[in-house]
Amino acid sequence: MRIGAIEAGGTKFVCGIGNEEGAIEERISFPTGAPEETVARAATFFRGKGVDAIGIGSFGPIDINPSSATYGFVTTTPKPGWANFDFLGAMKREFDVPFGWDTDVNAAALGEAVWGAAKGLDSCVYYTIGTGIGAGVFAEGKLVHGLVHPEAGHMVVSRHREDGFAGNCSYHADCLEGMAAGPAIEKRWGVKGADLPPDHPAWGLEAHYIAQAVVNTIYLLSPKRIILGGGVMKQAQLFPLIRAEVKRMLRGYVRSPAVEDGIDDYIVPPGLGDNAGLCGALALGLAALRDRSGR
Amino acid sequence: MRIGAIEAGGTKFVCGIGNEEGAIEERISFPTGAPEETVARAATFFRGKGVDAIGIGSFGPIDINPSSATYGFVTTTPKPGWANFDFLGAMKREFDVPFGWDTDVNAAALGEAVWGAAKGLDSCVYYTIGTGIGAGVFAEGKLVHGLVHPEAGHMVVSRHREDGFAGNCSYHADCLEGMAAGPAIEKRWGVKGADLPPDHPAWGLEAHYIAQAVVNTIYLLSPKRIILGGGVMKQAQLFPLIRAEVKRMLRGYVRSPAVEDGIDDYIVPPGLGDNAGLCGALALGLAALRDRSGR
Repeated sequence: MRIGAIEAGGTKFVCGIGNEEGAIEERISFPTGAPEETVARAATFFRGKGVDAIGIGSFGPIDINPSSATYGFVTTTPKPGWANFDFLGAMKREFDVPFGWDTDVNAAALGEAVWGAAKGLDSCVYYTIGTGIGAGVFAEGKLVHGLVHPEAGHMVVSRHREDGFAGNCSYHADCLEGMAAGPAIEKRWGVKGADLPPDHPAWGLEAHYIAQAVVNTIYLLSPKRIILGGGVMKQAQLFPLIRAEVKRMLRGYVRSPAVEDGIDDYIVPPGLGDNAGLCGALALGLAALRDRSGR
Repeated sequence: MRIGAIEAGGTKFVCGIGNEEGAIEERISFPTGAPEETVARAATFFRGKGVDAIGIGSFGPIDINPSSATYGFVTTTPKPGWANFDFLGAMKREFDVPFGWDTDVNAAALGEAVWGAAKGLDSCVYYTIGTGIGAGVFAEGKLVHGLVHPEAGHMVVSRHREDGFAGNCSYHADCLEGMAAGPAIEKRWGVKGADLPPDHPAWGLEAHYIAQAVVNTIYLLSPKRIILGGGVMKQAQLFPLIRAEVKRMLRGYVRSPAVEDGIDDYIVPPGLGDNAGLCGALALGLAALRDRSGR
């Protein structure tokens, strides 16, 4: 079985071909340009390779409601040319195979649940913390959609009492993304996070905000594992800081060994590393193929 | 078809018998006493009535993990006698029928999805705001469980800048429940909420906190409807205040007609009124029966 996968990011596209074990056999990546040109490059990669299905995990916001007239569209992005672009439709005109279509973060959550850090679990939440913040939610064995799709990056957070930073989100100023995404770190401290030493106070503050998102996720969804990925989480010193802050904030309320005794295995980096997105897209393609065959 | 239903509250038990249309044909209620005595009263009610299944929506925390050794137990409640009580097991010893078992709020969410305010939708979140605050989550056509079960009442909230109240949660002080449940209102203002006039500043403050829970719920889960029930929500003046505060906090970020144009039909009281819990337990029983028959 050969499954096509597209990790469609706002900055770069990664296209790959993999199998039902999650192994990527071939891949290319290229910068995200104008939509028609970018789709054409992806199509050129897949053409003649006999893929049985294609999965797409896309940057967004995107329309993932199958009964909507704009299903498959990128909707309101500021990225030039992509707003209201029928991405899925453009791919379907090129390939007559089943397509999986979801957000980049839902794809990553699924990839982690099938082959990664949440393998074998029927629930997990995947956060990406980088230029922006987003989350994919996998609950009761299914990716969660709804009215639109989760947009957990804009969660309300309680400001740290020593943090005078106004916030950086163009919609909400001091929401989670406005206080804790990469650009917020850079704006608050005047240098990129990657250039701050591991013992800089920036990381304690960062843990304060990310821990709130984790705690609220535990309270609202009670997932069996929480995976933190994205550029900011390359700062490995954040993990122990976040875990300690989560325990401090929960104050023993959630009586579960996973949280009380095993938090190092509960709040974890992606098991698939930088492949979470591409493997997730592969898993979406595989799921679409299985749906089509009624399996 | 005759389905038994138990709305097991910490203060009172409601037992009923209903049909597959959600109609309750007969009911009793009695105060929640010691566990053995309370279960005996429930069993007496159902005995000889030929129920095909029984659904229980219980106060908690409870163990809802079918593979756990304490599945069906009430776990850590301070309620005398009920901690570590095998509630479901005690009922199963009395009746050899399929049992549905879930939290009171998950039951209410299911009841609302099957017959109430979220009828026909595949997702909704049900909040009860009363002596405590809890939420039931229905997503992608399923009730959400996980590590334990949602405990949304303890969500982190951002304090209103004019609110000097320390908070009332014995675990977290100023979490959502600590700032906005009925006892917090009473402690902050020195009188019960029910005795405050509808134009009292208490309600604006209450809307501030409840709106944060709603907004975070939209961001994390994107449910197709949010239902607010429980004693505090009998104050009907809260609904317009909460809806306005939610729109103010979202700042146009969530592009969905349901939120942008139809918020009066998006944030709503329970369609089943005070029957949400009992009808929900009925729906749990019905689901257990259908699972058993493989439908």
